[in-house]
Amino acid sequence: MRCKRCRGPIVVEVRRHNAAFCRDCFFHYVGQQVTRAIAKHRMLAPADRGLVAVSGGKDSLALWDLLLDLGYQADGLYLSLGIGAYSERSKELCLAFAAGRGARLVVHDLGDEQGYTIPEAARGGGRSSCGVCGLSKRYVFNRAALDGGYDVVATGHNLDDEAAVLFGNTLRWDTAAMARQFPVLEATRPGLVKKVKPLYRVAERETAAYCVLKGIDYVVEECPLVAGNTQMRHKETLNRLEEASPGAKHTFLFGYLDRAAELLRAADEAELAECSRCGMVTVAPEDAAEAPVCAFCRTRARLTGGPARAGTVLPLAEREAAAR
Amino acid sequence: MRCKRCRGPIVVEVRRHNAAFCRDCFFHYVGQQVTRAIAKHRMLAPADRGLVAVSGGKDSLALWDLLLDLGYQADGLYLSLGIGAYSERSKELCLAFAAGRGARLVVHDLGDEQGYTIPEAARGGGRSSCGVCGLSKRYVFNRAALDGGYDVVATGHNLDDEAAVLFGNTLRWDTAAMARQFPVLEATRPGLVKKVKPLYRVAERETAAYCVLKGIDYVVEECPLVAGNTQMRHKETLNRLEEASPGAKHTFLFGYLDRAAELLRAADEAELAECSRCGMVTVAPEDAAEAPVCAFCRTRARLTGGPARAGTVLPLAEREAAAR
Repeated sequence: MRCKRCRGPIVVEVRRHNAAFCRDCFFHYVGQQVTRAIAKHRMLAPADRGLVAVSGGKDSLALWDLLLDLGYQADGLYLSLGIGAYSERSKELCLAFAAGRGARLVVHDLGDEQGYTIPEAARGGGRSSCGVCGLSKRYVFNRAALDGGYDVVATGHNLDDEAAVLFGNTLRWDTAAMARQFPVLEATRPGLVKKVKPLYRVAERETAAYCVLKGIDYVVEECPLVAGNTQMRHKETLNRLEEASPGAKHTFLFGYLDRAAELLRAADEAELAECSRCGMVTVAPEDAAEAPVCAFCRTRARLTGGPARAGTVLPLAEREAAAR
Repeated sequence: MRCKRCRGPIVVEVRRHNAAFCRDCFFHYVGQQVTRAIAKHRMLAPADRGLVAVSGGKDSLALWDLLLDLGYQADGLYLSLGIGAYSERSKELCLAFAAGRGARLVVHDLGDEQGYTIPEAARGGGRSSCGVCGLSKRYVFNRAALDGGYDVVATGHNLDDEAAVLFGNTLRWDTAAMARQFPVLEATRPGLVKKVKPLYRVAERETAAYCVLKGIDYVVEECPLVAGNTQMRHKETLNRLEEASPGAKHTFLFGYLDRAAELLRAADEAELAECSRCGMVTVAPEDAAEAPVCAFCRTRARLTGGPARAGTVLPLAEREAAAR
């Protein structure tokens, strides 16, 4: 087998596209997938200030590297989750990458700023630690982008991640969650920053190969709290399906995006409101007399035992006035 | 563990309902699931003439038995597929069941009537043998019911079958096929007979247990042509998910039926037409100038090498006149 593009000796095979590439043509292929994703969903414009959420893992560092190479404005955002040596090592790798590329890394710390860490959340009952982690990251990323004046938050979700999340939601037909799963989520109201997933066309093993071949040092271990979680099991199931039928993950994810996502989004009528504690956007309570409190504030109150801290963002009314 | 209903010693456990039953209470439970299915989807009325498609397997014989016990008018329909000793044994068991219950069995023979058998279809290229088998059965069941003046065709599809078919269609997001998967398909135009699946709430191992406990003799072996087919693989995948999380199949199938089926059905706009060869209902060709030919006639012409045989049903215009 020779490189599909230049006929040179291959280093990476991409079975679902019935292709294989040499090192340079593989970088070209990955860049092309990201360019296609950005163009199709109008994810980023050159004038946009982008904030890349980096964990120190292969996906987010590959994404940051690709966006910088493609000439986009992209600062990094690292959120320390307080998972001991794992978090320390992750932060070091993000800092090293930023230094190597002369890029700016914004660092936040969940424990210092919000009063709880993810291992504490794991012991706190209620949501799973993965659930609290996801909720916390979505909240902090959005808020940090808002506070920092960024136009877009980019995350490193790859094809395998997106397929696994969709698979889990589809097994339960959680149509509300499915409706919100898309490569781009527009900032439909003040308080929301646009979210994009430029790697949704790139498989997990391809982001790993990208980092290895590019010499990007990343945390190889999975998060120590993640072992046996549902998403890992779904990834294993999808890997078996992919093994039996190469392209199965791509077909599943892209079939959804092309043929079903729009239907579900049109039917999803969650009404939004401003959280009465932090001012951020949340789903409106069913009882209109009830003060809206977002899931993040409720979780933080439960974990820290005290009232939620005051937000640093403007209340909705002032943001709306500023947006006019 | 004791019987959930009478506290007697148990013979069958139903993990997804966190229940177990003695013999008699298990029959009651299965009957209740079927009664619920029939009532919820208005599948059958006591005055309806029902035709149960029986294969000699556990599901269809259990269904026939249950419908007779519940007092419905239910004749059996056996279609011989020409799969050697397997088909012979299947027919014998259907005849024996009918004789034992004093019920009427209508017998059709694919080779005699249509000029090909399923093993011949397997060697014919084109659709898989399972594909031709499904197509042939749908066609013959509908046509036999129409010719015999039946109001409803009932098939033995159980919860596992329905979940596996939905799973396969969902992995490809074949939204047209998904839109047509429902426990009841109404006769929306002349030429179509209503189809119902009264066992869609009953798991595969429950129909097997039902037959064993009721002393119904059924073909235990799978069809010799089915080994390794896609649906079998999907069943295995779902069995692993069910093992990890009891109720997963039920959640998947019922979540779809409750929250997504309606959306997909509303968006499914296949236009129907009358097949120019046999007069049955088919999807209209995209090119309006093209004469519609149904998938069955196309397949039969390919397999038998000759033109399709004339149909025994009335052309659409006469059926419509009769329906007025």
